[in-house]
Amino acid sequence: VRVFNFAAGPATLPLEVLEQARAEMTDWQGSGMSVMEVSHRSKAFVAVAQQAEADLRELMAIPPNYKVLFLQGGATGMFAAIPLNLTTPDSLVEFINTGAWSKKAISEAKKYCRVNIMADEAASNYSTVPDAASLRVDPKAAYLHYTPNETIGGVEFPYVPAAGGVPVVADMSSTILSRPVDVSQFGLIYAGAQKNIGPSGICVVIVRDDLIGKARPGTPSVWDFDAMAREGSMLNTPPTFGIYVAGLVFKWLKKQGGLAAVGERNRNKAERLYAAIDNSGYYANPVAKHCRSWMNVPFTIPNPDLEKTFCAEAAKAGLVNLEGHRSVGGMRASIYNAMGIDGVDALIAFMRDFQQRHG
Amino acid sequence: VRVFNFAAGPATLPLEVLEQARAEMTDWQGSGMSVMEVSHRSKAFVAVAQQAEADLRELMAIPPNYKVLFLQGGATGMFAAIPLNLTTPDSLVEFINTGAWSKKAISEAKKYCRVNIMADEAASNYSTVPDAASLRVDPKAAYLHYTPNETIGGVEFPYVPAAGGVPVVADMSSTILSRPVDVSQFGLIYAGAQKNIGPSGICVVIVRDDLIGKARPGTPSVWDFDAMAREGSMLNTPPTFGIYVAGLVFKWLKKQGGLAAVGERNRNKAERLYAAIDNSGYYANPVAKHCRSWMNVPFTIPNPDLEKTFCAEAAKAGLVNLEGHRSVGGMRASIYNAMGIDGVDALIAFMRDFQQRHG
Repeated sequence: VRVFNFAAGPATLPLEVLEQARAEMTDWQGSGMSVMEVSHRSKAFVAVAQQAEADLRELMAIPPNYKVLFLQGGATGMFAAIPLNLTTPDSLVEFINTGAWSKKAISEAKKYCRVNIMADEAASNYSTVPDAASLRVDPKAAYLHYTPNETIGGVEFPYVPAAGGVPVVADMSSTILSRPVDVSQFGLIYAGAQKNIGPSGICVVIVRDDLIGKARPGTPSVWDFDAMAREGSMLNTPPTFGIYVAGLVFKWLKKQGGLAAVGERNRNKAERLYAAIDNSGYYANPVAKHCRSWMNVPFTIPNPDLEKTFCAEAAKAGLVNLEGHRSVGGMRASIYNAMGIDGVDALIAFMRDFQQRHG
Repeated sequence: VRVFNFAAGPATLPLEVLEQARAEMTDWQGSGMSVMEVSHRSKAFVAVAQQAEADLRELMAIPPNYKVLFLQGGATGMFAAIPLNLTTPDSLVEFINTGAWSKKAISEAKKYCRVNIMADEAASNYSTVPDAASLRVDPKAAYLHYTPNETIGGVEFPYVPAAGGVPVVADMSSTILSRPVDVSQFGLIYAGAQKNIGPSGICVVIVRDDLIGKARPGTPSVWDFDAMAREGSMLNTPPTFGIYVAGLVFKWLKKQGGLAAVGERNRNKAERLYAAIDNSGYYANPVAKHCRSWMNVPFTIPNPDLEKTFCAEAAKAGLVNLEGHRSVGGMRASIYNAMGIDGVDALIAFMRDFQQRHG
């Protein structure tokens, strides 16, 4: 029996994607092999990778002057790879710090270039985002980096920062494909796969043509965006099974009606859950209302001693992985694309029941 | 219907491993989730990763003063990560060049440190390995790097180079787990997974304790061996599905009797195939007999115009991916652990039949 899995990542995947992967596991496309056993250089697999890229381009309406790369090392790897590709040691990079993942990106970038934290939400305990009009980007900066959605804090930008001519770089790991975005507003978008794309072990990089080809000496070849773009992300053996599953997820998203339809469903899911929290007089979410995440919903209860009971009883009811991140405690429901409205409604019903019994 | 898949990597996997992955695809261990959907920080998944490491340690008899890491970026990523962790820009690294993969490792290392090619088999067209007694390693070298098995050339070292006190670093991508090795003779062993370990997207690194903790500034965190060792390879989200499949492969190898038994089977498979080639008066393998690979067997026929016919007819007979590497042509049969003796015998029978019809 399948459960409702609210994990922050690796996260729930569409059941039909898993069922297709299962059906093809020992004999993919009549080849007599698993897709895992097929050479990445074979026509059949190259077609899989190209179709995955084409479907992602269609879903996100990625303009033709952007490259799409499937790399290894996760978003944390890209925290190093992006400065290696986009800066020299003397470059200045502007950062907006809105929480745990911003901080990790900042910490890694400091190894490679000069870093300025142009806005820091520490004073709000990372419960909001800076006012759009307050942002002042140094026009000489190599890029402005921000984290559109903080997976742990549950804070999501309702706007794309204006940076003048400075390229905007966004870690979209936990928000990519959750709603339409205008890719042309970004210089580079990257995202670990294990939330809205597929299994862990792939990082998608969407980068504007003019930003590649300037990797500094000492950039590892597998992270040289230009070299990888020229090789169709196959300078070395890519994570083939992950790319195959990502491709199935992209097909599934198209069947759902694309990102406009998916975004409306995600808005509805998030609004229902936040309304249940806000109207409960029991549950609380600490994030400012205008920037609450559609994907990651942290919440607390008045008596933290009951958190373990909440999670244990929820798990018994088939609602699993509701524990908050180990760094912050509380609870967190991650409601990515593959979490249906039925899962959100089941969670809300459980929360009401729990409150009646323990509130 | 399953085929016999002679691809060099990604390569054939044990059918029972694929069948178990299939059986658990939507409900792993009664969790109601795929293993792909489970948090890498969960007790259940941490147990998978720890068991995979324990089984690999047992199979290879890895001494306790070695760390075992599961990293992203493939062997090509490690071509950069190893000098970043083991050298300074002034360090000298000794290389033995026995073919295509040696050359790639050399080319990447040159970005990071001084490189000396202490032995180069160019004169033999990479059809042999240097004489063990001829090797002279600079005692001040940071390490000696070699490629125990050249996947494209089909050349395999019958010995481990003696390097005095200099650590020996070995790219075992296409030979790891194919026979017993004495890990204590190495400073560092690394291997992309997609031949004898599991799906692509993981690189196993086995490194002696005294060689870690000296990563140079600017080493990406996800490739800092010491940081990764301290985090159980989970400084960031690891490729969870790949680690799970690798764990199933390790269990399967233990059921086969461990590496002594597996090595005997591999020796037998290779000897049969080389004997069929050598005794045919038609097929030819260019590699010196004392260093022919047990894993990758390149062979040619007198009329190269018939190579396409050979591969097409073989595929019709259920023997696929026998094309030689795009850089060298000819044919190549990769006969990794998961290729049974039945596959090798079927190939030999087909080769005899083809020779009778076309020879």
